[in-house]
Amino acid sequence: MQDLQPLLRPRSIAVIGASTQPEKVGGMPIRLLGELGYAGRVFPVNPGADTVQGLRAFPTVEAIGEPVDLAIVAVPALAAPDVMAQLGRAGTRAAVVFTSGFAEVANGSGLQHALATQAKTHGVQLLGPNCLGAMNLGERMFATFSPIPLTGVPPVGGVGLVSQSGAFGAYAFALAREAGLGLSHWVTTGNEAGLQVADVIEWLAHDPQTQVILAYIEGARDGMRLRQALAAARAAGKPVVIAKVGTTVAGASAAQSHTASLAGEDAVYQAVFDEYGVHRAHTLEAFFRLGYTLARGRRPARWHSPTGMAADAVAPVAIVTVSGGVGIMMADSAESQGLPRPPMPDAAAAALREAVPFASTSNPIDVTGQVVAQPKVLADALAGVARSGAYGSVAAFLAGGGNAPRVWSLLEQTVDDLASDPQAAPLMIAGVISDEKRAWLEARGCLVFREPAHTIEAVAALAKAAAMTESAQSPVAPAQLLSVPELPADAKALSEADAMALLLQAGVPVAPHGLARDADEAVRVAESIGYPVVVKLCSPDILHKSDVGGVVLNLSDADAVRAAFERVRRAAGTARFDGALVARMVRGWGEIMVGVRRDPVFGLVALAGIGGTAVEIFRQMSFGLAPVSRERARAMLTQSRAAALCAGHRGHPPLDLDAVADVIVNVSRAADAIGDRLDTLEINPFIVSADGLVAADAVITLR
Amino acid sequence: MQDLQPLLRPRSIAVIGASTQPEKVGGMPIRLLGELGYAGRVFPVNPGADTVQGLRAFPTVEAIGEPVDLAIVAVPALAAPDVMAQLGRAGTRAAVVFTSGFAEVANGSGLQHALATQAKTHGVQLLGPNCLGAMNLGERMFATFSPIPLTGVPPVGGVGLVSQSGAFGAYAFALAREAGLGLSHWVTTGNEAGLQVADVIEWLAHDPQTQVILAYIEGARDGMRLRQALAAARAAGKPVVIAKVGTTVAGASAAQSHTASLAGEDAVYQAVFDEYGVHRAHTLEAFFRLGYTLARGRRPARWHSPTGMAADAVAPVAIVTVSGGVGIMMADSAESQGLPRPPMPDAAAAALREAVPFASTSNPIDVTGQVVAQPKVLADALAGVARSGAYGSVAAFLAGGGNAPRVWSLLEQTVDDLASDPQAAPLMIAGVISDEKRAWLEARGCLVFREPAHTIEAVAALAKAAAMTESAQSPVAPAQLLSVPELPADAKALSEADAMALLLQAGVPVAPHGLARDADEAVRVAESIGYPVVVKLCSPDILHKSDVGGVVLNLSDADAVRAAFERVRRAAGTARFDGALVARMVRGWGEIMVGVRRDPVFGLVALAGIGGTAVEIFRQMSFGLAPVSRERARAMLTQSRAAALCAGHRGHPPLDLDAVADVIVNVSRAADAIGDRLDTLEINPFIVSADGLVAADAVITLR
Repeated sequence: MQDLQPLLRPRSIAVIGASTQPEKVGGMPIRLLGELGYAGRVFPVNPGADTVQGLRAFPTVEAIGEPVDLAIVAVPALAAPDVMAQLGRAGTRAAVVFTSGFAEVANGSGLQHALATQAKTHGVQLLGPNCLGAMNLGERMFATFSPIPLTGVPPVGGVGLVSQSGAFGAYAFALAREAGLGLSHWVTTGNEAGLQVADVIEWLAHDPQTQVILAYIEGARDGMRLRQALAAARAAGKPVVIAKVGTTVAGASAAQSHTASLAGEDAVYQAVFDEYGVHRAHTLEAFFRLGYTLARGRRPARWHSPTGMAADAVAPVAIVTVSGGVGIMMADSAESQGLPRPPMPDAAAAALREAVPFASTSNPIDVTGQVVAQPKVLADALAGVARSGAYGSVAAFLAGGGNAPRVWSLLEQTVDDLASDPQAAPLMIAGVISDEKRAWLEARGCLVFREPAHTIEAVAALAKAAAMTESAQSPVAPAQLLSVPELPADAKALSEADAMALLLQAGVPVAPHGLARDADEAVRVAESIGYPVVVKLCSPDILHKSDVGGVVLNLSDADAVRAAFERVRRAAGTARFDGALVARMVRGWGEIMVGVRRDPVFGLVALAGIGGTAVEIFRQMSFGLAPVSRERARAMLTQSRAAALCAGHRGHPPLDLDAVADVIVNVSRAADAIGDRLDTLEINPFIVSADGLVAADAVITLR
Repeated sequence: MQDLQPLLRPRSIAVIGASTQPEKVGGMPIRLLGELGYAGRVFPVNPGADTVQGLRAFPTVEAIGEPVDLAIVAVPALAAPDVMAQLGRAGTRAAVVFTSGFAEVANGSGLQHALATQAKTHGVQLLGPNCLGAMNLGERMFATFSPIPLTGVPPVGGVGLVSQSGAFGAYAFALAREAGLGLSHWVTTGNEAGLQVADVIEWLAHDPQTQVILAYIEGARDGMRLRQALAAARAAGKPVVIAKVGTTVAGASAAQSHTASLAGEDAVYQAVFDEYGVHRAHTLEAFFRLGYTLARGRRPARWHSPTGMAADAVAPVAIVTVSGGVGIMMADSAESQGLPRPPMPDAAAAALREAVPFASTSNPIDVTGQVVAQPKVLADALAGVARSGAYGSVAAFLAGGGNAPRVWSLLEQTVDDLASDPQAAPLMIAGVISDEKRAWLEARGCLVFREPAHTIEAVAALAKAAAMTESAQSPVAPAQLLSVPELPADAKALSEADAMALLLQAGVPVAPHGLARDADEAVRVAESIGYPVVVKLCSPDILHKSDVGGVVLNLSDADAVRAAFERVRRAAGTARFDGALVARMVRGWGEIMVGVRRDPVFGLVALAGIGGTAVEIFRQMSFGLAPVSRERARAMLTQSRAAALCAGHRGHPPLDLDAVADVIVNVSRAADAIGDRLDTLEINPFIVSADGLVAADAVITLR
């Protein structure tokens, strides 16, 4: 892990290219550090001035006479590499480079490389170039040239914010200030010649000031670093909210590579986010709202299932409403967020019905407009469901009722009681309420949103964060040792027989088959495995065998097999001929495609979904990092809708979905066993049959 | 159309059950009308009081001595029907009934029926019962018992709001007030024993005060009335925003009926909304934002296509940004909103590149952070794209730049110039700006949103509104006269031969076929249409012929046809046997399902989508009101992804999508021709072949 102490908690700062004019790039940080109360020492470096903005200036960084923790660099691009070397020689530990004109412009990559090399050689940690800098709000450390802190600074709080884009970072700062969202640190990474967003995430994961991490990324250069950082945040129990842009544009431009074109690389990012429980925001508004929710909201209580069944993985919600219509809106929202809504337990329902005979005690629980006349009914219903043990959280729509004095005094009492009871489900409110009351509620982890859907989204985000923290992260068991066949250096693929043998070893069911060198052997294989069979050409020179007529389907007797063998042999033409694979035609009611491909950023990625025409038409493949866990494989089956084909489709027997998921797990392990040489592994199709999934085909290509 | 003049612009109001206590249900309207300045006369009716809240009271409505326009009724439920009769005899024109305890409670339907009958018999227009009343903000007419107007009233404006739910209506009133959204009228319809939401929408469509209609519905009782109202609003060029709740809950509960379970009835509402260009809101926040956008935003200018091709139906947008990252976010949003983003025209691009060499002139157009130093670059870029003729609208992200004095003065000038030029594309802004500047911009139709995605959604909503108003609403040509076969009163279905004949007549391609009474005739038919063929049992007693073995596929010679005929005859068992249909097996590369079903609310509804397993797995059928227009049929093909199967799937020849759409149009017309007797029409599958769609099957059931 990169130690960001010198960058984010520096005891001293030098400004290289310090300007006497506070509005200049080299002047603004000095103004900010001075005006806003940074407690460390600041050393302007400017060979042409004795003082800069009232501080003694130094002609060079060496002239300061002691090593500084952080240097802010605002010199012309061409001078930057030399400055970096000087910094290194003077013992500077970290540098923020504001200067632009590096890799973001044509022909600027060479200069950026020179800069990065000097930083590395001299052991200076580099943020930038072409970045807007960094801030530590608690230490009033503003290493930026943006004037925005001059007009106000957000409160100090538990949200750490990191952005690749400076302009996004500045806008985010302004919005956080406006929303009163408390920040710990603010970092923009610019061209990322040194530090990446992932390095900052990982450091924030260990930073005691930071409870929630907000990150804006356009793309990760080093996917493994990002995974490591997200794993660190998960291990620390700190939720990460990411705004990743380019969802559709990137998808379109990535469509050149075949497997990527099935869904666009955005789906791979999504798989990474799913793997590490990242909260994804598609708008700025959601980015901040999720940050606020996760930093301030109380997480769901433990609950039990009233039916005596095992509790769900997702904490259930009780919706309590004074308006039937808004209750339905919130139920729609809960359904789309995947939040269970079990009915009100009998005791609580009976109590409510006694107080309000026309109340609806299903969930949404409609206490009706009566509550203005009888606020105790609302308070009792809220406390009743919160203490029933049946719910993780309670979401209540109060309209403007919270402002009514009689309602408020009872609500205040109820929230206070619930906040001190760790067994009680926390309350989240939708409605209009005064700022003062809102702040009082917020201090007790009870958040208030105007938009009812946002209240439900808050409940869902907190439930997700709780599940991430509490669940033992089902670790992938060490893969059994698979014996991978010898892979000659020039081999472009495994033979289908070798591929099938490897899959079998890994626990993947494959259609009964055998390799035949001549027509007689083909018939013997067919008779031993049973008709109907398919005969497929085996040649190391021919990857797409059906294109050359090397596949003959649906053979039901010995004569047909004999004829098919000869046809396949002729199809080989002048290519090497290793024989033909004779395999049982498995009957089923559908096809699933499972594959593993090498993503340029994140490494091996597994994908699964409905096979056949649907692959191109619906483009609903789901992705997971390989090797995948059974839990993730189950999610892939659901997201891609392949689960629907396995779970009693059109009267067919339902399969054990855990067993189906294990097939995906085992395919991903087989790919992982091949390791660095693997390019793609594709099984298209798996036949969905009463015996479970059976691989009818297997292609493994190497690089 | 119902004339709502007496209800919404009454010259006089009687309050039946008037209370001397202003906070009571029968007291609040008198207080509101008095305190807030209603100019008409108010007559309290209360037999036990001489005066009520300072007004002379009357013992009965007759005692007033003159007919009043509107009566507000706040009497016990059991008394309400008699009161309605008294009102009628006294010549009252409209009544708002606040009282609850009617159809919304167990055993209350009878009383509601009595109330409605009295209103109808005596010619009194009825709003309610169990409603929160109505308001005309311009005339300070507050016929409600909600105290909410006492704490402030939204400005008078062009947005008319109607809600089935009173609590939703009250909350909406509070949010509109907070957002400063100008309202014309506010109506809640409650149990809808008389007036429905649709009646109010239709009246608002003709009301000169109202420019945009906002409606909240849980469900329409009379789908045809709603369609008529939406058609009136469309004809008047007034956008309608609807929040329809129960999207997922209703879907689940409606899953009993087969066809409904393919998508849930929500998809039918969506088809209605699509047909009439309704803007749908899934959150309260979006509901108001769309209302604000459509009431205040300038609609897109006319544009031309720089490539010389026909202009798109959707007005294209230019995205101008000071941050690359936010620009990508906005591009993602534009893509999901279906807004085209053509590149910057050459002249404008050259001018920008001259000013800022590193600017990106693709779209999003990144003018970079330079604009703070050189605000003229931003102003020139905005004016350049707005005047280029290539865009309908311009969406600009300015971060906090609009507040900088130098930027603002140029922006002000630019917006002023553009606002006076009807040829110029209007500008919508994302960023932080002072309230005063925002109001100035808003007055020129230039809206400002903090959330970049909301700016794009505003552009999309205004483009949709413009397209709805400007496009001659492609009317469905009168269907050709189809000769529908005699339908005996007890017939449950058409024979397949009759169904196919009707479809052929309507211009639907069906597989070549013929009816055979014996095996010899079956062979003759097969030879005349060509092998391979399918033989299908024809019996008026057997609807699901494949269930009894009455379908034999893939027959390629006379012997096979003969055997199949005998098999099918035996399959009929003791049922009537009309012979067998011999039809060509059409070869293609995919299957599309097209159907028409009778929706209980909206009448005949057409559906289309990918056939086969996908029907249940992906549930992506798209719906349209039958008979559908070609335009709607095209949209159905796209939404269901069936278009992908027709447009060059896996190297197959691309079909003419207009011709494919016409097949759907013609299927819907055939169903329409059958009229009231039609229950369902289903063609499953249409084979997608090089010759276009060919119906391989047809089932028409009657009711």
